Amino acid sequence: MPTTSAVSEASTSASAVDALPSSHPLRDGRTSGSALLAAYRGSRPEVRPVWFMRQAGRSLPEYRRVRAGTGMLEACLTPDLATEITLQPVRRHGVDAAILFSDIVVPLRLAGIGVQIVAGTGPVVDRPVRSAADVAALPPLDPAALAPITRAAADTAAALGSTPLIGFAGAPFTLASYLVEGGPSREHLRTRALMHSDPQTWHALASWVADVTSAFLRAQVLAGASALQLFDSWAGALSLADYTTFVAPHSAWVLARVADLGVPRVHFGVGTGELLASMRDAGADVMGIDHRVGLDVANARLGGTTPLQGNIDAALLFAGTKALHAHAADVIRRGSTAPGHVVNLGHGVPPDTDPDVLTELVEFVHGCP
Amino acid sequence: MPTTSAVSEASTSASAVDALPSSHPLRDGRTSGSALLAAYRGSRPEVRPVWFMRQAGRSLPEYRRVRAGTGMLEACLTPDLATEITLQPVRRHGVDAAILFSDIVVPLRLAGIGVQIVAGTGPVVDRPVRSAADVAALPPLDPAALAPITRAAADTAAALGSTPLIGFAGAPFTLASYLVEGGPSREHLRTRALMHSDPQTWHALASWVADVTSAFLRAQVLAGASALQLFDSWAGALSLADYTTFVAPHSAWVLARVADLGVPRVHFGVGTGELLASMRDAGADVMGIDHRVGLDVANARLGGTTPLQGNIDAALLFAGTKALHAHAADVIRRGSTAPGHVVNLGHGVPPDTDPDVLTELVEFVHGCP
Repeated sequence: MPTTSAVSEASTSASAVDALPSSHPLRDGRTSGSALLAAYRGSRPEVRPVWFMRQAGRSLPEYRRVRAGTGMLEACLTPDLATEITLQPVRRHGVDAAILFSDIVVPLRLAGIGVQIVAGTGPVVDRPVRSAADVAALPPLDPAALAPITRAAADTAAALGSTPLIGFAGAPFTLASYLVEGGPSREHLRTRALMHSDPQTWHALASWVADVTSAFLRAQVLAGASALQLFDSWAGALSLADYTTFVAPHSAWVLARVADLGVPRVHFGVGTGELLASMRDAGADVMGIDHRVGLDVANARLGGTTPLQGNIDAALLFAGTKALHAHAADVIRRGSTAPGHVVNLGHGVPPDTDPDVLTELVEFVHGCP
Repeated sequence: MPTTSAVSEASTSASAVDALPSSHPLRDGRTSGSALLAAYRGSRPEVRPVWFMRQAGRSLPEYRRVRAGTGMLEACLTPDLATEITLQPVRRHGVDAAILFSDIVVPLRLAGIGVQIVAGTGPVVDRPVRSAADVAALPPLDPAALAPITRAAADTAAALGSTPLIGFAGAPFTLASYLVEGGPSREHLRTRALMHSDPQTWHALASWVADVTSAFLRAQVLAGASALQLFDSWAGALSLADYTTFVAPHSAWVLARVADLGVPRVHFGVGTGELLASMRDAGADVMGIDHRVGLDVANARLGGTTPLQGNIDAALLFAGTKALHAHAADVIRRGSTAPGHVVNLGHGVPPDTDPDVLTELVEFVHGCP
């Protein structure tokens, strides 16, 4: 294992593990020897670990069956259902990790924000948050509201045995964008305007989101997650200057607030090739890379000290086995330049993916030398 | 004026001008002394030229008035209306260039493709093009179909006097994506899959689009446009490797097919910071830069030899005069490192922009030393 600071910060010291309950899978040793944890900590397990962002969800017929008649947020907040959905891709594909089935806006709902998932649109916020008064009126998150998340994470971790569960949360910029825009947005114009027109209100809003997000992540790890991933899905909309000034401090605060737990912290965004070092320096132990930047290039940009996750192009899932496996082999070859590599897609599983293609891809990755 | 190859290729030699009709504004001298042409050719006019992508359109009440009751594509193909709409922002804002009012899918419609602009969605293609047979069935573009474009460009150029008209077209990847996906797409998965699953069909499709696009651009320049811009709006979805292998050759073919006309060729895409050199090397004389990459950084990436256009962040149009003008001054400062700089936004004018903000921005840019 390299002894660089980026990697050694990620390693679990005895004191870090002590911050977890004695029944935690990392503390009782169930997941600490897993391929996922080894790669996240910068070593090379015998079999290369692989999982897929959005592996639990619409691509699976068993998911569509159990979700039938239940709204997205309701499903996320029903522990038995969230547990079952989280386990489905592990059973079917044999992936090396589960990620808690949730939605990026779940912590907003738990804090009392009126937010719905509208079919064909995405998350829609009842009352957009745009002024200092709007931000001041945001409710604090009652820790008791996290009970269904804690329960789902604990039950999932118990059912997973030696397979690690990854905790999931949206980063402050991406979540704040839903609050400011009122829903999904291609350019995030109002959110980015707010940063410049009223920096104080922006920072107050991002701080509120950072509080909610870190409480949401912390609950998942304490309940049984052995790693966590912070999704800043829309950070690629930002220039490096805006990211560094207006966003990185809030993401850093989230990552710092879970640092004592000693679990690897993965940080991911789409189209963030120019932001990788800044995102890592916010306190990530592992960087998720989208399909646009080769892992060898990403590794060089990060100074060769940071384990990577990614970055099979989801478009190749539709290009036939030959092209997909050639591409996956290339990703693995480039990923081997990094101090650790967890294979994943460059973005979430598209809803119309043939699940058999994913299962075969897992077999292919596991069979690679 | 620098004497680098990139810049000198853009300069209008006598033989290049000879390729234009004698009544062309560049040949009779009307636009050749304009600030726009000077900056595109790598020199520094006294007043910095500025125009805005999508300056003609929904942000203007006079546009909404003349468009009322007329479909988007119908408006583009009605020369008197297209001319009026193209002139409106020049009259109102005093910008230094007009860009022909059109839509990216107009040349597809002119070639006989069934394509509609659906309100709230965007362009929708009646029958997506996905197989070798689909591509083989694509009709050639009848040059006679370009008559309304030629007429609008000629009338606009005549009305503009010494203000240059810029010709407009979508690049092969962006247009092919509409054909393959059947409409707008966030990730262009089917298009990008086609490149890898059936490269021959992809190249045949992109070649067809390149033919149509270059004929469309050529008609605009011959009729009176003094410059042209190729929009590869979605190229930022591609890795550099995919861009170079599957897209750059087709964009290069388009740009080569108008090279003999001697007008500056601007090439622009969104989120294309990693592709800038490849896009320039496809044959562009000027690179359009989106808001994500500072012009000083872009200039360094391009070796300091290529005039730039951009890159005021459209989000700042909503951030108040003080923040907007401070940002514009910063853009101008960074742009002054390049051999030539035409001020523009980093993307199109958002539909809900206050037009007075744009008018004031033009005044501010013209007043900058």
